[in-house]
Amino acid sequence: MAEPVFLRACRGEVVDHVPVWFMRQAGRSLPEYRALRSSGSILEAITDPTVASEVTLQPVRRYGVDAAILFSDIVVPYYAIGFGVDVVPGRGPVVAEPFAHRGDLERLRDLTERDVDYVAQTIELAVGELRATNTPLIGFAGAPFTVASYLVEGGPTREFAVIKSLMHTNPALFDQLMERLTAITVDFLRLQVAHGASALQLFDSWAGALSRDEYQRFALPATRRVFDGVADLNVPTVLFGVGTGELLDLMAGSSCDVVGIDWRVDLDEGRRRVGDRATQGNLDPARCVATEAVALEATREVLRRAGTSAGHIFNLGHGVLPQSDPAVLAAVVKVVHDEGRAGVR
Amino acid sequence: MAEPVFLRACRGEVVDHVPVWFMRQAGRSLPEYRALRSSGSILEAITDPTVASEVTLQPVRRYGVDAAILFSDIVVPYYAIGFGVDVVPGRGPVVAEPFAHRGDLERLRDLTERDVDYVAQTIELAVGELRATNTPLIGFAGAPFTVASYLVEGGPTREFAVIKSLMHTNPALFDQLMERLTAITVDFLRLQVAHGASALQLFDSWAGALSRDEYQRFALPATRRVFDGVADLNVPTVLFGVGTGELLDLMAGSSCDVVGIDWRVDLDEGRRRVGDRATQGNLDPARCVATEAVALEATREVLRRAGTSAGHIFNLGHGVLPQSDPAVLAAVVKVVHDEGRAGVR
Repeated sequence: MAEPVFLRACRGEVVDHVPVWFMRQAGRSLPEYRALRSSGSILEAITDPTVASEVTLQPVRRYGVDAAILFSDIVVPYYAIGFGVDVVPGRGPVVAEPFAHRGDLERLRDLTERDVDYVAQTIELAVGELRATNTPLIGFAGAPFTVASYLVEGGPTREFAVIKSLMHTNPALFDQLMERLTAITVDFLRLQVAHGASALQLFDSWAGALSRDEYQRFALPATRRVFDGVADLNVPTVLFGVGTGELLDLMAGSSCDVVGIDWRVDLDEGRRRVGDRATQGNLDPARCVATEAVALEATREVLRRAGTSAGHIFNLGHGVLPQSDPAVLAAVVKVVHDEGRAGVR
Repeated sequence: MAEPVFLRACRGEVVDHVPVWFMRQAGRSLPEYRALRSSGSILEAITDPTVASEVTLQPVRRYGVDAAILFSDIVVPYYAIGFGVDVVPGRGPVVAEPFAHRGDLERLRDLTERDVDYVAQTIELAVGELRATNTPLIGFAGAPFTVASYLVEGGPTREFAVIKSLMHTNPALFDQLMERLTAITVDFLRLQVAHGASALQLFDSWAGALSRDEYQRFALPATRRVFDGVADLNVPTVLFGVGTGELLDLMAGSSCDVVGIDWRVDLDEGRRRVGDRATQGNLDPARCVATEAVALEATREVLRRAGTSAGHIFNLGHGVLPQSDPAVLAAVVKVVHDEGRAGVR
């Protein structure tokens, strides 16, 4: 079978249509998801391979997107090794005892396949079904800095004052933390590929809270080591963050294949900043909660600024908002497929 | 008496030291503030001229900063005209009945001096004392877009989905809303200058949530009209927002004198983007919650990137965090005053 368009676009090849998928395409915006998950916590759904694989497949069936992404959460490996993480509805990941001292490094033991056997099973179940439509599955993990921000802050933050204080006052301990997170992340990503994932995305969602100097010193080295740790697997890799306009050139230097771009940076300018890497983005998710006309006008503007289908994957600039209308997202997919045509970059 | 250094720097003049003040320099980080405001809501403190003027003066006495800023909140004029706004501790401004329909325009009547007599009195009390040290007082208001985001969303948001839906699906109503907010903002700023404010800052804190196209179409025109509406008063004006790296050149085109820059953009690059305007910023507030050494290293880096005292006002990249140590902020002021010397831009 021909290699899927999504994978070829990640490698910068000229393809006959622009591939599209949506961050958080699986989940709360879909009625079939809400029907399936009428009760129980999100971690219960993630750790049940039957539920999680079904949720992974729902948006592929509904939208005909060019890639599935594993239904999971960036804190899953840390939940799995017993660090004490929960995902609280309406708030996000919460850590009962945040990382604070050297002694906490011991709580970050290596991840084994047994810890996350449900992830392996979810991927195998999903990939089994995706074969029929030759749709690739994207595995993912949180990048070490973004994961560290949750483990150190104890939950979501707007200020990043605790993690920044740690990096600046105790860089040795911060580096040890990042080393542990890097090892766990590499093992977790390799496991996903071993069971059928054919691309990998690293979510460094909060990297945009850092200055360029901080990003280069404290976040980028670990990100680079993660990509180095999966390089021999020869699957395309995507690096994504929000508010990273100042960092795009540095992110492109991480040896990822694709750089995700949020809606704040015009895509033509974003493509200039990432140089010879492919790009993914960058429709504002807020445009998909108004009317179809509003979403499609913005979709066409993104396609226009992308310039060509070579080395671009259409996506949102951040995750699908729960209040999005699935019919609007379906219309976006249709326009990308119909109007995002081939061209030379 | 000589014109204060802060005002001269706003005008881009070469001055003999870099002036410094801090956004949210008055408030929760100061023990003398917490002592004064042991009970009662923040709006009670703001609407009591004795308390509010004292709070305005506290950081000037403690730090010897080059400017005071009125102790108030950007929602005060809307609270004053009875729009139904409250400021909830730990959450921020909350609106009981958000702006949604054309009929809501009537709830945004013109502001009269009587509505905010406490602001006039606070300024007069504070300016009376500030005269002794020749310290200017900065008046301020929220820029129409940022205020609109609160009035339309009903409170703080990370997504801006409701306000963006309004602008794209009903631009005529959005424009009418901005027109009302512009009129109220101009009247509120003029009143502050009439009673003694000698500079004005417009907080478009959330402008960074917009794309360049959205900013140009939906936020910048109202901001420009506000500055036009106070131009005859001949006081320096500052325009500030967070995460506005992509917008700095557009903000500089608003006819403000000074553009505020957050810590995400390196200051030398930020100064390049704003061209011939003065700049204000851009120490990461998170650096002031660790140790003095961490804060001072970052302070010196900002001074180095500023290059010269001409046309630069030292500040944080966002407001002082409540957990900041006042001794660290005092040390920052000293370093800026001692080491931020004159030079030619």
